[in-house]
Amino acid sequence: MMNFQTNSATESLFGTGVDLHLELRGPGLRAGLTGALREAVRSGRLTPGTRLPASRTLAADLGIARSTVTECYAELVAEGWLTAQQGSGTRVAQRATPRRAAARTGQTGPQRRRPTHGLLPGAADFAEFPRPQWLAAARRALTVAPHDAFGYGDPLGRVELRTALADYLSRVRGVYAEPERIIICSGFHHGLTLTARALKARGERAVAVEAYGLGLYRTLLTDAGLSIPPLPIDEHGARTDDLASLGGVGAVLLTPAHQFPTGVALSPERRAVAIDWARTTGGLVLEDDYDGEFRYDRKPVGAVQGLDPDRVVYFGTASKSLAPALRVAWMVVPGHLLPDITAAKGRVETVSVLEQLTLAEFITSGAFDRHVRSRRQSYRRRRDQLVAALAQSAPDIRVSGMAAGLQAVLELPPGTESWALQAAARQGLMVSGMAEFRHEELDRRAATQDALVVNYSAVSDSAWEGALNTLCSVMP
Amino acid sequence: MMNFQTNSATESLFGTGVDLHLELRGPGLRAGLTGALREAVRSGRLTPGTRLPASRTLAADLGIARSTVTECYAELVAEGWLTAQQGSGTRVAQRATPRRAAARTGQTGPQRRRPTHGLLPGAADFAEFPRPQWLAAARRALTVAPHDAFGYGDPLGRVELRTALADYLSRVRGVYAEPERIIICSGFHHGLTLTARALKARGERAVAVEAYGLGLYRTLLTDAGLSIPPLPIDEHGARTDDLASLGGVGAVLLTPAHQFPTGVALSPERRAVAIDWARTTGGLVLEDDYDGEFRYDRKPVGAVQGLDPDRVVYFGTASKSLAPALRVAWMVVPGHLLPDITAAKGRVETVSVLEQLTLAEFITSGAFDRHVRSRRQSYRRRRDQLVAALAQSAPDIRVSGMAAGLQAVLELPPGTESWALQAAARQGLMVSGMAEFRHEELDRRAATQDALVVNYSAVSDSAWEGALNTLCSVMP
Repeated sequence: MMNFQTNSATESLFGTGVDLHLELRGPGLRAGLTGALREAVRSGRLTPGTRLPASRTLAADLGIARSTVTECYAELVAEGWLTAQQGSGTRVAQRATPRRAAARTGQTGPQRRRPTHGLLPGAADFAEFPRPQWLAAARRALTVAPHDAFGYGDPLGRVELRTALADYLSRVRGVYAEPERIIICSGFHHGLTLTARALKARGERAVAVEAYGLGLYRTLLTDAGLSIPPLPIDEHGARTDDLASLGGVGAVLLTPAHQFPTGVALSPERRAVAIDWARTTGGLVLEDDYDGEFRYDRKPVGAVQGLDPDRVVYFGTASKSLAPALRVAWMVVPGHLLPDITAAKGRVETVSVLEQLTLAEFITSGAFDRHVRSRRQSYRRRRDQLVAALAQSAPDIRVSGMAAGLQAVLELPPGTESWALQAAARQGLMVSGMAEFRHEELDRRAATQDALVVNYSAVSDSAWEGALNTLCSVMP
Repeated sequence: MMNFQTNSATESLFGTGVDLHLELRGPGLRAGLTGALREAVRSGRLTPGTRLPASRTLAADLGIARSTVTECYAELVAEGWLTAQQGSGTRVAQRATPRRAAARTGQTGPQRRRPTHGLLPGAADFAEFPRPQWLAAARRALTVAPHDAFGYGDPLGRVELRTALADYLSRVRGVYAEPERIIICSGFHHGLTLTARALKARGERAVAVEAYGLGLYRTLLTDAGLSIPPLPIDEHGARTDDLASLGGVGAVLLTPAHQFPTGVALSPERRAVAIDWARTTGGLVLEDDYDGEFRYDRKPVGAVQGLDPDRVVYFGTASKSLAPALRVAWMVVPGHLLPDITAAKGRVETVSVLEQLTLAEFITSGAFDRHVRSRRQSYRRRRDQLVAALAQSAPDIRVSGMAAGLQAVLELPPGTESWALQAAARQGLMVSGMAEFRHEELDRRAATQDALVVNYSAVSDSAWEGALNTLCSVMP
């Protein structure tokens, strides 16, 4: 688990009072260090111009190989987060300062500030959070709530929300969901943590994961003591047919509706293979349905969970459809796993009961459907604009992945990914490269598709046009 | 960790579909089983008349000694939760049915239903939750919140709330609190879990606890792999002078402002001894300040934390002052412990950001102070009424503990606690006995004070008079 933290007692590492808390174990140390530093710059905790410790010093402080730190710095310089200059050391890049921006892009007035656009995963167009509708739902929910709703609450989650979700998931995602098999959690991260704990308690030792995905979840699994063999991905999705040859795997974590980040859907054949594997071996499919509501090209494909509710743990979240700030998500759990997950969650509810009541009212009143529909139209329009703009300004760039979800993959000529990231960063555009999501156990020299992963839902409408123009301008 | 759970897949244990999920390790198995069953009856999951499995069957199912089950059943029969009749087995008591109530208390009309009153710990007068004021704060907070407030949030908690709490805790509780040393969590249970994890990561093996307290927290610590030697309690509070003779203890968990459940305050000398012990040994004081806002007799005593912020982890919560349903609490952490607690909390915030913003606004607007003041007056009045009513109807019963907090201790003649609990239960009054809170390692045959622990904040104003009358009527 890695963390940046302002901390007066341990501020020796960086003179700025920003400390790097690293737990130095498990695979992916370099990726973890890189991710933690990137996040610190992105969030503004490491401010432009801050000088980072010499690689030798940091390596000694962390007790790791100096080459690991050097590689990490080099990667972040390539991506434009850091700068390295002879005699000046490694510093946080002055990305958004008007002077550099003007000098590099030929903008006219020195007063003009260029905005920094972020099209990074995890962000969303928070300007569109339906504040009045949410407050209205809160008012209705709190007004009618019985007095005892203000107590500790059922550790599985409030029954009003579980009932509303059972209806919603069955209707929209084809999930076989009874309220008593739904557990409310604070996010996919929380749900996966509970599941990992339950799997460990059952004596499982390995969870197969997709070869590309968010490193945060791989770290979560390895921190729980599970090994995470990677499944390759092709145009039909994760190669679930490889599961049979991986020995000792108790579960497989998949994003079937819209693979993150490649954007492919898991084909019906691969779904069937995954379910067959689970039935034969007693294994489990962990289905992360993070953006299943957003599909633009054809009829939404239902969740894998409907194929066999006893072999699939289904995860959904309000973070993509509404906002991460709610910290409300849900899992639909096979009956035989309920006791273990319940035990892992503990006897005390951790998710705000008032928020649960509000979300239940928001769903049952139809406000949730209306909000998702409106967002879907907006994101579909953005995706269309992205495809059209690239077709005009960079016709060689292929937009791969389905017309779905919140992100698109822009395939680049071999060897140009770092260059494109750096060029984008110089223009104040933060975007992710495919390499950022690669499983740590994959051979770094193996041929992979150079690509940018663009979260087109990450900015407000007013910033989108500028972000899109910048993106087109840095295509190789 | 124990849990009752309706679960179609594992409903074999009780014919009613209510299953008992027990993790059968650690000390206090019997107490845990008793507590879980009591809770199931109390909450209505086990309905009146339900027949429990034979002790032999349940023991076999759980893989524990039959005598453990027998003792557990006997205790619950003594408390009035269960009934045992030859030929009919052990059943959930028909506490609240009008026929029995009329027969036993001589009430006239068979139509008249007698309410069941609960004066149990953890409950509060939820009818007094300030719904309009809370909704108004939510509206103000959400209206002015920046767009990025709807994102994932700082894993330590939203800065608005940490700043508001730093001011409040310093002003009201004498806590030395900088915002950057405050961590938001979902409840004391969550905060203690993080602390236990951090202590384990540091290699600690034992946390001393008060000899009487909530078994839930003792279980939490033992589940985390920590041993929990008990500290005796006398009229000056926990005997912190015993800490020096307990070897290998890394921390001590205390309720200094108002010991739960005995109600004594930790004396200045005992506070000094605890801090000296912590300084000398490098240990930590874990200060659970659960009801520090509620003091009726004299000037509130500040938190121990102010004596040495580097040796005390301070815990506060909105559960007592406002409502558990918010699932918001806070800890103030020594700088040297911040990295470990931060790592234990993880990189992803789990507490609703919107709830945090609302609480920050609720505090800074003064609504929190007004609410606490109003509650304080109400609870003080109830305590005075309790003392006055007992003085009249049962002058031999001493009300011990300070005029503070949400509970009072009614000292009973030796050997009458079980009888009084049973008598109260027959009258539809649920109340706790002192034995319920006793540390599992204490000798059960050792002399202890028979007493009832009465949470006079647990019912609404309209129910209070009836509850008080019933309580007085069952005094031995």
